[in-house]
Amino acid sequence: MNARDLVLAVDVGGTKLETAMVDAEGGVIAGTRHRAPTGPATDAASLDAALRDAIARTLASSPTAPVAAGIGTAGPVDLPAGTTSPLNLPRAAEFPIVRTVAAASGVSDLTLRLDGACIALAETWVGAARGASDALVFVVSTGIGGGILSGGRLLAGGTGNAGHLGQLVVAASVDDAAGLDTAGGGAGWTAEGLGSGPHTVAWARRQGWTGDTGEDLAADAAAGDAIARRAVERSARVVGIAVTNVAMLLDIDLAVVGGGFARVSADYTELVERSAHAHAVNAYGRRVRVVPAAAGADAPLIGAAALHWRADLLR
Amino acid sequence: MNARDLVLAVDVGGTKLETAMVDAEGGVIAGTRHRAPTGPATDAASLDAALRDAIARTLASSPTAPVAAGIGTAGPVDLPAGTTSPLNLPRAAEFPIVRTVAAASGVSDLTLRLDGACIALAETWVGAARGASDALVFVVSTGIGGGILSGGRLLAGGTGNAGHLGQLVVAASVDDAAGLDTAGGGAGWTAEGLGSGPHTVAWARRQGWTGDTGEDLAADAAAGDAIARRAVERSARVVGIAVTNVAMLLDIDLAVVGGGFARVSADYTELVERSAHAHAVNAYGRRVRVVPAAAGADAPLIGAAALHWRADLLR
Repeated sequence: MNARDLVLAVDVGGTKLETAMVDAEGGVIAGTRHRAPTGPATDAASLDAALRDAIARTLASSPTAPVAAGIGTAGPVDLPAGTTSPLNLPRAAEFPIVRTVAAASGVSDLTLRLDGACIALAETWVGAARGASDALVFVVSTGIGGGILSGGRLLAGGTGNAGHLGQLVVAASVDDAAGLDTAGGGAGWTAEGLGSGPHTVAWARRQGWTGDTGEDLAADAAAGDAIARRAVERSARVVGIAVTNVAMLLDIDLAVVGGGFARVSADYTELVERSAHAHAVNAYGRRVRVVPAAAGADAPLIGAAALHWRADLLR
Repeated sequence: MNARDLVLAVDVGGTKLETAMVDAEGGVIAGTRHRAPTGPATDAASLDAALRDAIARTLASSPTAPVAAGIGTAGPVDLPAGTTSPLNLPRAAEFPIVRTVAAASGVSDLTLRLDGACIALAETWVGAARGASDALVFVVSTGIGGGILSGGRLLAGGTGNAGHLGQLVVAASVDDAAGLDTAGGGAGWTAEGLGSGPHTVAWARRQGWTGDTGEDLAADAAAGDAIARRAVERSARVVGIAVTNVAMLLDIDLAVVGGGFARVSADYTELVERSAHAHAVNAYGRRVRVVPAAAGADAPLIGAAALHWRADLLR
């Protein structure tokens, strides 16, 4: 490794894509960051064009050519195929993201992972999970996604979708078999369906609260509004159950929480930990510490670059 | 590896311990198997004596000295400490199992893992998970325990307790914060607390069924008793939710089901798969196939020996 070597980092999300050059210490090189909006109207052609444009600008503004490229993306992904089908970009399903980045950059050493996995890498490399070997890293925001480190390695799963914490069913109606046949397969019973930012806002409104956004909810909860506060506690309780499940299933001892909605209350992380410990049925599950994320807003890009710089965590 | 090389396999459970010699093909050597009962009265001294006695008999009946020893045990375990605290052997907590087996056998190459992890190794080596790289293997019996293969490796977790499927909270009462403070931390909401053999029998009795055992339940369900059948379906539904959670969290595509209660009905495995697919909120979670275990009754010993013979799955 040369100290001047740089990696092309690519992050494709549901509302924007970003590209930048990242050095061997996890630093985003000033002036190399470029972004473009994405959304429900984004299709394969427009995503291809936006990616090529952002990559071209990043490469043009970089002091050196990249030695490799790391790609994080909203999923589900299909790692063997090198494609992704972001839920929030329904018109860009099965997008050949690896092929596109390769063609746009000329780089042949490319690694793709789910965005949650990249955030987990960033926290492990430069954030709150430094030195951890068994940890869960996740964000609470529009969705609840993340990545898992087990035995010092980032888990991928068969197609690359490991780590999506929000899809855990935590509150099934066990004695209601009919519920199984409803459309959506019970998303309302998942951690995301019960505890994400938008679902928590919706729950509060159903209880009579009149705000509109997570920011409103944060302000009202801080000001002492009882419903807003209960909504915050309910989200943390649900998320804590999901954390417990990972702690019990995978014997992890650290959970790192990021994402906008995790800042809804100063004690949100503490509430999540309290719920996690209360729901753990064995002592080893109560070892888990829940701490705030520390890699910062650049975590998706830093984590994408970590696919090269911290390849030791992928082996 | 010499074709005649043999491994000392040790399995310590809540009702018995077993020792035997196992060859490089996963065969238990005839005449080398020895066992002793265990139970609530078992303390450290009696467990130590029983283990030493069984190991001495196995070694005395073996054609050759062992090249290594593999130990599977009921947990929770503490791999770094080399100890185990089996829930069903409360008087033998923090039992120094590695040191005991080393002293009794004279073997210096010893590996310890949770019993569920050993069963997962056995199924991967000679059973229904052969060739799998991302799989869950578990038993439904008094408890619901297991092991997980991710990326071709057996997960251990920080202290060795990864894989305990039954401890997943799947049916929390999210809107009942008070429930968190009850003793036991919500074991009634876990897959094991809702779906194990004894809990399923207890549930059926609360509905008015008058049998006593899992065998009674199996016979009555087969004979058309409506409550017995509903109890079987309820267990499979709960277990299926836990399978879905692993499938979604870890992106596995295979779940192997063993244990006595999994034979409560001819279609139990199918019912589990149906529930797993119904509860999956994403297509990749519906890839999971649920199949019966195939490594047989010797799986715990075969899996313990696999800790040496299939050490490639531990790296």
